[in-house]
Amino acid sequence: MKSVVASLRSSCVVALTLCAVLLLRVHAHAQTDPLPSWNDGPAKNAIIGLVLATTEQSSPKFVPPEARIAAFDQDGTTWVSHPMYTQVVYCLERVAVLAKAKPELKNVEPFKTVLSGNREAMAKLSMKDLEKILAATLTGMSVDDFSTDVNNWITSAKDPRWHRLYTDLVYQPMLEVMQYLRANGYKTYIVTGGGQDFVRVYSDRVYGIPPEQVVGSMGGTKYGYAKDGRPILTKEPKLLLNDNMAGKPEGIHLMIGRRPVAAFGNSTGDQQMLEYTGAGDGARLMMLVLHDDAQREYAYGPAQGLPNTKVGTFTQALYDEAKKKGWTVISMKNDWKRIFAFEQ
Amino acid sequence: MKSVVASLRSSCVVALTLCAVLLLRVHAHAQTDPLPSWNDGPAKNAIIGLVLATTEQSSPKFVPPEARIAAFDQDGTTWVSHPMYTQVVYCLERVAVLAKAKPELKNVEPFKTVLSGNREAMAKLSMKDLEKILAATLTGMSVDDFSTDVNNWITSAKDPRWHRLYTDLVYQPMLEVMQYLRANGYKTYIVTGGGQDFVRVYSDRVYGIPPEQVVGSMGGTKYGYAKDGRPILTKEPKLLLNDNMAGKPEGIHLMIGRRPVAAFGNSTGDQQMLEYTGAGDGARLMMLVLHDDAQREYAYGPAQGLPNTKVGTFTQALYDEAKKKGWTVISMKNDWKRIFAFEQ
Repeated sequence: MKSVVASLRSSCVVALTLCAVLLLRVHAHAQTDPLPSWNDGPAKNAIIGLVLATTEQSSPKFVPPEARIAAFDQDGTTWVSHPMYTQVVYCLERVAVLAKAKPELKNVEPFKTVLSGNREAMAKLSMKDLEKILAATLTGMSVDDFSTDVNNWITSAKDPRWHRLYTDLVYQPMLEVMQYLRANGYKTYIVTGGGQDFVRVYSDRVYGIPPEQVVGSMGGTKYGYAKDGRPILTKEPKLLLNDNMAGKPEGIHLMIGRRPVAAFGNSTGDQQMLEYTGAGDGARLMMLVLHDDAQREYAYGPAQGLPNTKVGTFTQALYDEAKKKGWTVISMKNDWKRIFAFEQ
Repeated sequence: MKSVVASLRSSCVVALTLCAVLLLRVHAHAQTDPLPSWNDGPAKNAIIGLVLATTEQSSPKFVPPEARIAAFDQDGTTWVSHPMYTQVVYCLERVAVLAKAKPELKNVEPFKTVLSGNREAMAKLSMKDLEKILAATLTGMSVDDFSTDVNNWITSAKDPRWHRLYTDLVYQPMLEVMQYLRANGYKTYIVTGGGQDFVRVYSDRVYGIPPEQVVGSMGGTKYGYAKDGRPILTKEPKLLLNDNMAGKPEGIHLMIGRRPVAAFGNSTGDQQMLEYTGAGDGARLMMLVLHDDAQREYAYGPAQGLPNTKVGTFTQALYDEAKKKGWTVISMKNDWKRIFAFEQ
């Protein structure tokens, strides 16, 4: 009889301890919402669900820390990219600087059009014209000179709508996802169609992502020596990998050599990265940011109900694929409590 | 008077505590030699000196943890590469497997020569022949199939001299350097002329270096879909970067985007990586492994006093440059107490 009482008492102690532990956990969780800029809903739940499923040791979908890889597209996914990619703005503005050093450019197309400042004419520039501008503004200098120049620009140039630095226009909810994933052992990567060397200049400061975790479109460099004999790497007009569409899984394999567990995008440029991520075993998270908030940011693509087919945007076909494959669409309007850190 | 006594007493306590702490540190250091397979000497001192100079917060040469990058060549630096690179052995052995699937290869050069097993004839194969063999054996399959195949081979094939797995032929002293650097906040990278995808298969298990920290010669891949619709990456016969000589700093910039603080090599293929490393500010360590131990491993290059000019080896010119630039030459014979982990 005594032993039954003892056993009951010990069961009670165990049960009470368990209750206390559980309450503490719920309390701790309630106290520190890891995603405070997100409204409750399926998108927020999907993110928290992935972290719980992959990090709890007892979970059947547990992923060892070294395999916890998350890939974030940049333009339109982690910062504003509308109406023009920030790096394209940089290149166009660099043309004026170039023309000072080489005045003959003023009479050569497409530089003439860019220097005219005629936005309508600039919008009509062909892909070949754009390539000429990219080659002229992104190559030919040392990698160190390029970094210095991008750093000077990105810490001073301002977006015409918000009159703020472009780096102020990162999405606070996505920064929270990055921090939350890192706090749970994930290695976060930028996987962008933009230039790898461009994004590396500010990735650590802005996203907490070090240069070696930036995967982007990659140009070749050439090793040589400066006049004083110092070794120097010069940026060459040679594209090694266009980190866009099919190039994204190719770039991920090249730079990381592992399949991501989570991938975040917003356009057809990210479709293959999401497919590749989703094709792995176990828990996976694929998310697409839908720009449906004309007031606080922009509304374009299927948010406008348009039969959008333009590559590089969120087309109707991509929206349909997301629904079919169970990818989570993030509505900026409904899922994000605030968009920018400066909105308090 | 009382206060003077108290003050003296407290000074004594402080001094005694300091002494105790210092003694404990010296003792701890003596107890846990981080490089037990190294003989005392300039090479061992150079490694320990770099770590102390870059990690002590008060050091004028302190390097913040995120910038602590160390690059290790593989063949001849971290494992045996003589008389033939391990990956070349793999490729030659793969030819026989290929010929089973495609019997017509038996009548086509250079495959015919390889299949003959005539080592003398094989040694005479041209660079173009070798490229054909590499393309046939390293491309055309999915990246997953390639990994599986390399893994099967590397966990079973044996070196003809030691009758051991090739991965048993890693240099224990270099493993200790890697571990010591990592324990001091360094991120260790393999920077090899070998294939990136090849080395990634075993890098984590053998060196404790994850796939994303392997920089090697890089081939392109092509994203597509298997018959069942599953996304698949296929290895293409397209060289993106030959991670050798000038390609090493180029590969480091591409994959890491930072200049290493320490670099380890053994041949002319590593010269530019060491130059590039040495051109940075602050503390730097550049080391070259000299193969001068015919008994325990091999002796070749300047160790034999030969006017060696063959690219890919430790030439006399490289030896002279090392002396001129203050790079540290590691004598396997004198600096290494033991070479392999299996020598007890």
